[in-house]
Amino acid sequence: MQELLEKLIEKHKPVCNKGKIPDYIPILREQDPFGLGITVVTTDKKIVSAGDCPTRFTLQSISKVIALILSIMDNGEEAVFAKVGMEPTGDPFNSIYKMEVFSYSKPLNPMINAGAMVVSSLINGKTVSEKLERLLKLVRDMAENDQIQIEEEVFRSEWEQAHRNRALAHFLKELDLIYDVEDALAVYLRQCAIGVDCTDLAKIGLCLAQNGRSYSGKQLFSRHVARLAKTFMVTCGMYNASGEFAIRVGIPAKSGVSGGILASVPDRMGIGVIGPALDEKGNSIGGIAILEDLSCEWNLSIF
Amino acid sequence: MQELLEKLIEKHKPVCNKGKIPDYIPILREQDPFGLGITVVTTDKKIVSAGDCPTRFTLQSISKVIALILSIMDNGEEAVFAKVGMEPTGDPFNSIYKMEVFSYSKPLNPMINAGAMVVSSLINGKTVSEKLERLLKLVRDMAENDQIQIEEEVFRSEWEQAHRNRALAHFLKELDLIYDVEDALAVYLRQCAIGVDCTDLAKIGLCLAQNGRSYSGKQLFSRHVARLAKTFMVTCGMYNASGEFAIRVGIPAKSGVSGGILASVPDRMGIGVIGPALDEKGNSIGGIAILEDLSCEWNLSIF
Amino acid sequence: MQELLEKLIEKHKPVCNKGKIPDYIPILREQDPFGLGITVVTTDKKIVSAGDCPTRFTLQSISKVIALILSIMDNGEEAVFAKVGMEPTGDPFNSIYKMEVFSYSKPLNPMINAGAMVVSSLINGKTVSEKLERLLKLVRDMAENDQIQIEEEVFRSEWEQAHRNRALAHFLKELDLIYDVEDALAVYLRQCAIGVDCTDLAKIGLCLAQNGRSYSGKQLFSRHVARLAKTFMVTCGMYNASGEFAIRVGIPAKSGVSGGILASVPDRMGIGVIGPALDEKGNSIGGIAILEDLSCEWNLSIF
Amino acid sequence: MQELLEKLIEKHKPVCNKGKIPDYIPILREQDPFGLGITVVTTDKKIVSAGDCPTRFTLQSISKVIALILSIMDNGEEAVFAKVGMEPTGDPFNSIYKMEVFSYSKPLNPMINAGAMVVSSLINGKTVSEKLERLLKLVRDMAENDQIQIEEEVFRSEWEQAHRNRALAHFLKELDLIYDVEDALAVYLRQCAIGVDCTDLAKIGLCLAQNGRSYSGKQLFSRHVARLAKTFMVTCGMYNASGEFAIRVGIPAKSGVSGGILASVPDRMGIGVIGPALDEKGNSIGGIAILEDLSCEWNLSIF
Repeated sequence: MQELLEKLIEKHKPVCNKGKIPDYIPILREQDPFGLGITVVTTDKKIVSAGDCPTRFTLQSISKVIALILSIMDNGEEAVFAKVGMEPTGDPFNSIYKMEVFSYSKPLNPMINAGAMVVSSLINGKTVSEKLERLLKLVRDMAENDQIQIEEEVFRSEWEQAHRNRALAHFLKELDLIYDVEDALAVYLRQCAIGVDCTDLAKIGLCLAQNGRSYSGKQLFSRHVARLAKTFMVTCGMYNASGEFAIRVGIPAKSGVSGGILASVPDRMGIGVIGPALDEKGNSIGGIAILEDLSCEWNLSIF
Repeated sequence: MQELLEKLIEKHKPVCNKGKIPDYIPILREQDPFGLGITVVTTDKKIVSAGDCPTRFTLQSISKVIALILSIMDNGEEAVFAKVGMEPTGDPFNSIYKMEVFSYSKPLNPMINAGAMVVSSLINGKTVSEKLERLLKLVRDMAENDQIQIEEEVFRSEWEQAHRNRALAHFLKELDLIYDVEDALAVYLRQCAIGVDCTDLAKIGLCLAQNGRSYSGKQLFSRHVARLAKTFMVTCGMYNASGEFAIRVGIPAKSGVSGGILASVPDRMGIGVIGPALDEKGNSIGGIAILEDLSCEWNLSIF
Repeated sequence: MQELLEKLIEKHKPVCNKGKIPDYIPILREQDPFGLGITVVTTDKKIVSAGDCPTRFTLQSISKVIALILSIMDNGEEAVFAKVGMEPTGDPFNSIYKMEVFSYSKPLNPMINAGAMVVSSLINGKTVSEKLERLLKLVRDMAENDQIQIEEEVFRSEWEQAHRNRALAHFLKELDLIYDVEDALAVYLRQCAIGVDCTDLAKIGLCLAQNGRSYSGKQLFSRHVARLAKTFMVTCGMYNASGEFAIRVGIPAKSGVSGGILASVPDRMGIGVIGPALDEKGNSIGGIAILEDLSCEWNLSIF
Repeated sequence: MQELLEKLIEKHKPVCNKGKIPDYIPILREQDPFGLGITVVTTDKKIVSAGDCPTRFTLQSISKVIALILSIMDNGEEAVFAKVGMEPTGDPFNSIYKMEVFSYSKPLNPMINAGAMVVSSLINGKTVSEKLERLLKLVRDMAENDQIQIEEEVFRSEWEQAHRNRALAHFLKELDLIYDVEDALAVYLRQCAIGVDCTDLAKIGLCLAQNGRSYSGKQLFSRHVARLAKTFMVTCGMYNASGEFAIRVGIPAKSGVSGGILASVPDRMGIGVIGPALDEKGNSIGGIAILEDLSCEWNLSIF
């Protein structure tokens, strides 16, 4: 297994050349565009890593999956999906036009920014801090790593440039889907700035693969909620390339603008990947290439 | 003339029944839904009023015309139209989708909210107050009425409910079209809250009709700028009913959500109308009916 | 198993009341709005049916899955996906706007009408008849039923009312994605008119569940192609309710406007459902209800 | 006058370099990209021409104005505007998306292709030929030139490439706005192929400028209808550059893809321009430049 992972890292490093570090979040520009790393954690507790992954990167959109889980645990499915839909959109993650032109009363799904802000604002907690602490706790529990922190510097950098997200948030406020714009943004952007490494991601993926049971065996949430999260990962997890990813790879996965990918192979393994160079849809270009090969090699597609 | 105006007021009062006071700006709900009033000021200095118009109402979107004039005087045409387009949109005043789906780099015209915010933020002045004082001065000069004030209570009411406008403003900030979101909103929403009466509006219309020369004869801006303003009033002045208004009435005009309409018949007269009950496009339902009859009766269409 | 199916039919018959027979295809109006039937065929060759399903109904959009399979067998993945995308859209099946506003050069996926017409027109065959005969053969082979025919009367009825599909086809012609508009429509609308019953559908579903191997054991196409088909069924199979269906049911499925649903549970069973009363997205309202219960009862979700 | 026109032709010839002959209508590619010509006909019967205009070009979209006039004469305003709107769109002439996404029941205005097809199909006449003969008669009467003909070769060339227009027509058929798709297209595309020269256009413009009275004094239609036509020319006549043209030139005008522009200065003159090189919005690049200078020089803006 180690050998295969090393081989794939070497094989796909060159493709990172064709990707780009996004420039709209200043601090992300400092990432190594040629970094490419992977960790696999299996249900029989093997942990294998390969590549020169940066020690640490931020969850960014990957956090949407975990916030959705917590929000459903806190509020129940019905309450959450009263305020956010379940449909893939075919549109970019920061899109808003459909809500205007089709007079939709809620964002189309919890994996686009608008939907994620609604979901996060529903997390229990009287203050921004309380909500975040509870979310951070779930992340730590899933990854079984108490060192996981919010990287304030990353948050600051995004907060200052969050014009589009602010626009979305005010749009949501008009629709009465969030209570306080600044609070909703503060929760959302801080959850994006939670710092992890590939092993953390892989263990989070394992927890989903084991239907809510963590690496060391704690049942953190129900099988039903785990399934729901994995379903959204398939239909909307890779931005508006989710359909193609389902065809080519077929693994529940969620990507982030930092270049991380969280993948979860039901009943088999969790996978964490990092590769900061992104393709034009915003997914790690090297990460997708590796996952496609792995899926083929180990027959991981759920379809 | 007096008689005709009185007759038209009586004729069209019942149609106000079919209109609605908008409910998204709390303070506007207090307006009399059956109010209907008109003032005409001619180039030979006759001033005739009819109807039971409220003593005072706010400019709302009508202010967009005057802010555009000042912004062009301050910056020149080229600088202003580098940041806002000249095309009618066929979309509602608070629409944003076209900028997203067509990747436009600027709002389509200065008469929709997004465009108006860009225009107002270009007015000279180091602070919000300075910009507003200069704009207020131009309004007073055009109306020749020093009593005209910003109605802070109306501003406050709108400021608190300005979710969509805030969304638009942050969208504009992302495109680097405005400098400070809160300042741009503060200028824009305060200009909307400038309080006038029908005579004020009629004199403002006369000033445009006389190519920048006020009722008492002061040249406030050039013929060229006056023409430009009147052209936008024809192509985009009545929201996404501008095309129909051009066909049925044919007078340069600008409406506001307060129910006011500013109309300007080149070289003949200015007209101010108030009728708070609005049709579904957001124009005074009684006001349009009166102007249509007047245009027919006096042959006012510019076409 | 028989008992459960009967029970579910009884339980969900009343919900058909809330659905509607579509009125835009005249001949479909003759269907029984309360009909509700189901057949399950398992990998261990059990065949169980329940309910009062009409003896015969047409595939309609369900045919898109089989046409896609044949088209890929004929042309290879690369050639097919050069002309049609892989992304769910969130839009209705007959939508075209995205291709215009985003200047897309191909339909978003093979499960919307525009994409399906492109796919079908790629099927090998010099004439419309040749293409259809080959497609019909694959349908018969998958269902192992040589009696399956195109119902010309249904085709005629749709052909005469196919204004929107004609509009889509000419749009595709402009983009050079189809060669002959009338031929493309003739293939597409005739494939929609292929008549089947629930057992046919269930066996087709089984063939997909068995990775291309039919009920009696013939390998009709590769595991890879079967997977691809099932993936599209998950991401785009239930129109713009695919996301919700994935969450609530989690089975690869494809619905048609006749009220039929083809479902395929990998390595376990094929399911055919008919219930002509549709919900507002165009899916069988009773059929979805039954599948949701079945998925829960038998734990069928792939996620 | 002659001298000024000659001077402007010389001045603006170089700008034609920046334009392009459209390539989607094969026969138009044969036009001289540097051709630039103009004719002015005044209410006091002066006729002045300048430039090397091709002897003949086709009306193309300019025909929409005359078809609208005839359609209103035949059916009355109410019947026509029950099937087509009055609003400028800000979208390209061949756009359809707004009807889909906003569920509009009719095209936004008579100057976009979809609206024009509806309007033309309303012209009285039992057959395509009858409709066209009546339209051709009105064109000849307005231009006072019995030699004006439909250029069948141009029609044929467009007919074969009319994929988008066919798509629009089928869309309209679905909405029950036209009766027969092929007939509607045949009328529309043949009216586009009516051949004229600059003098014809100028006289047509004069007829509108004189409120329906032709050069030699025949009243062809009412002042009201003439006004209506000129209003649409201002709000929607220059495609989605109409707003800018109104600002910069301010003359009722209608352009065609052949490079022709029909302009009408109320109570003063008609103008015909030809310059086949088009800007990106589809208007004659040299033609607009000349009209802008002329408007400034002679103070022609109606605003």
